[in-house]
Amino acid sequence: MTISKLTSGTCAVALCVAAGGTQAETLDMQAYVPQTLPVLGTAGVDLAERVGRLTGGEIEIVYHDPGALVPTNEILDAVSTGAIAAGWYTPGLAEGVIPAAPLFTAFPFGPDAVEYTAWWYQGGGKELWAELSAPFGIHTELCTMLAPEASGWFAEPIESPDDLAGLKMRIFGLGASVLEKLGAQAQSMGVGDTVTGLNLGTLDAAEISFPALDLQLGMQEHASHYYFPGWHQQSSLITFIVNQDVWDGMDDSHRAAIQEVCAANVALTIAEGESIQLAPLAQLEAEGVTVHQWNDEMLAAFRGGWDEVLAERTAADADFARVWDSITTFRADYATWADLGYLD
Amino acid sequence: MTISKLTSGTCAVALCVAAGGTQAETLDMQAYVPQTLPVLGTAGVDLAERVGRLTGGEIEIVYHDPGALVPTNEILDAVSTGAIAAGWYTPGLAEGVIPAAPLFTAFPFGPDAVEYTAWWYQGGGKELWAELSAPFGIHTELCTMLAPEASGWFAEPIESPDDLAGLKMRIFGLGASVLEKLGAQAQSMGVGDTVTGLNLGTLDAAEISFPALDLQLGMQEHASHYYFPGWHQQSSLITFIVNQDVWDGMDDSHRAAIQEVCAANVALTIAEGESIQLAPLAQLEAEGVTVHQWNDEMLAAFRGGWDEVLAERTAADADFARVWDSITTFRADYATWADLGYLD
Repeated sequence: MTISKLTSGTCAVALCVAAGGTQAETLDMQAYVPQTLPVLGTAGVDLAERVGRLTGGEIEIVYHDPGALVPTNEILDAVSTGAIAAGWYTPGLAEGVIPAAPLFTAFPFGPDAVEYTAWWYQGGGKELWAELSAPFGIHTELCTMLAPEASGWFAEPIESPDDLAGLKMRIFGLGASVLEKLGAQAQSMGVGDTVTGLNLGTLDAAEISFPALDLQLGMQEHASHYYFPGWHQQSSLITFIVNQDVWDGMDDSHRAAIQEVCAANVALTIAEGESIQLAPLAQLEAEGVTVHQWNDEMLAAFRGGWDEVLAERTAADADFARVWDSITTFRADYATWADLGYLD
Repeated sequence: MTISKLTSGTCAVALCVAAGGTQAETLDMQAYVPQTLPVLGTAGVDLAERVGRLTGGEIEIVYHDPGALVPTNEILDAVSTGAIAAGWYTPGLAEGVIPAAPLFTAFPFGPDAVEYTAWWYQGGGKELWAELSAPFGIHTELCTMLAPEASGWFAEPIESPDDLAGLKMRIFGLGASVLEKLGAQAQSMGVGDTVTGLNLGTLDAAEISFPALDLQLGMQEHASHYYFPGWHQQSSLITFIVNQDVWDGMDDSHRAAIQEVCAANVALTIAEGESIQLAPLAQLEAEGVTVHQWNDEMLAAFRGGWDEVLAERTAADADFARVWDSITTFRADYATWADLGYLD
């Protein structure tokens, strides 16, 4: 054995963490999605459990389901002021105050998880988001990646762009703006409101996520035509945000615990998201769902709509343009490398 | 603020970790690659540093360069007996005693990092390796992923399979067996021996890794024709192994520290490996290297050789066949999902 246990010097600090002794720092974390949702919610629960294990119970993250402490559209403010210590969040939710924010969650015809995380960790993405979100007094850790989403649920087949005219549809983020260009009445809203809208008939169509999650939500009860691929959200960044003063005041080893678990979550959720879709998809089909793949005409229409939206957003906001430039430069280099390095 | 610091009860255990007090458990880690190698070595150094930070110095992993404690081909034995606590390792090195081992590092025409890690974490890969390596008394954590490697360095262009006849080449793992089928004298050997062989002229050709690493090793001083893609090693699993008794004897939070940092390393090294290749590649070209892409005839020859090797290995070893079956079943499902979920 080459293991040595050394105990020397005097004890300057005694941490009492065993049974009978507790020193716990509790971080209330307001989430924007229910903790039961596959990957999207469960990864936040995993974060809490594993940070607890890692710190011997010294850091207790408490996952609060949507609305428990504040509504989803107030999470950023609440974490910013310190009213709530932390949030289970995705940058795109901050679009109202940071126009470039959707580029840090998912954007139409965007990258897969490898390319997106490479941009975040190595290509300047993390630093750009830190800069743009700094005025709000938050610290952000990338903490989960979502597998490609479906494109959505429709009551009737969509054969040509004309079929989108007047369609009232829930779709996340920049995808909503693209569908508006194609004549739909599209909006980005929370999961709960979406299900309510479908039940009330105020929505004709909706996309939420990937098969494992859509099945759990019972989306097949509202529409039977299920379209792929999710051109609007190929892979998505989900984050842990924390009040900057809270973060700065934590022990270094506690910050490290959150950073390591979040980065580990990225690897684990990529693996999970890619592995859990086929059984739910088969069950959806068994319940009468028809799975479709967008035809070339539709994909070209979506791409055309995205080009329009992109031109408007880059013209309207210098930061959006700057982030987009960072992404496109990175992606061009990545394409050069991937063409050389990969088979096919 | 919603943060509370609670101190209650009595202190059953006092851990003395601050200045003046030390309780450190040292894990000597014998590596199979030098710590200076980009990603492949540096990720092991990162593991040591970050586990130290996470545990407030309670776990000290010491990275030992190749041969410092035992030669590379004795790492498994040394960790198995407990002569050394840990290893920076890759399963394929155990091929001599576990014939299926190369399937857990990289295999010809294998998956990218997303698919490979999905199989490892979710598709049964981790459990299969745990079962096959259990007789050796080690615990394994996947701890780094390598980006696609180049196919290798050659003194002259390789235009047809005939050009491989008699070629003395270093190439890792199962790729060596494939080249043998094509008439080369191929062998898998360590980095140090490879450079020595090239200097002595006992090797005509060699593959080591990807551009960032090959440049650092100065491979361009030995040959000027650099081939892609690395069909033999698209992405690779690198692992931390530890003596099972040592692992079982560690505090749960210390085991958690190693597990989280290793999984985090997976996400971080995927991002790093995909981002650092273009500048080294440009420098290699500036130094006179010609970059080639294998033509279709060559790729078909490699694939044919692999089919032969695969038939032999699955016939010769029931565990190899069982692992291969697990991989191919997973990959077939994954292809179904990826075809649906991804654009293009």
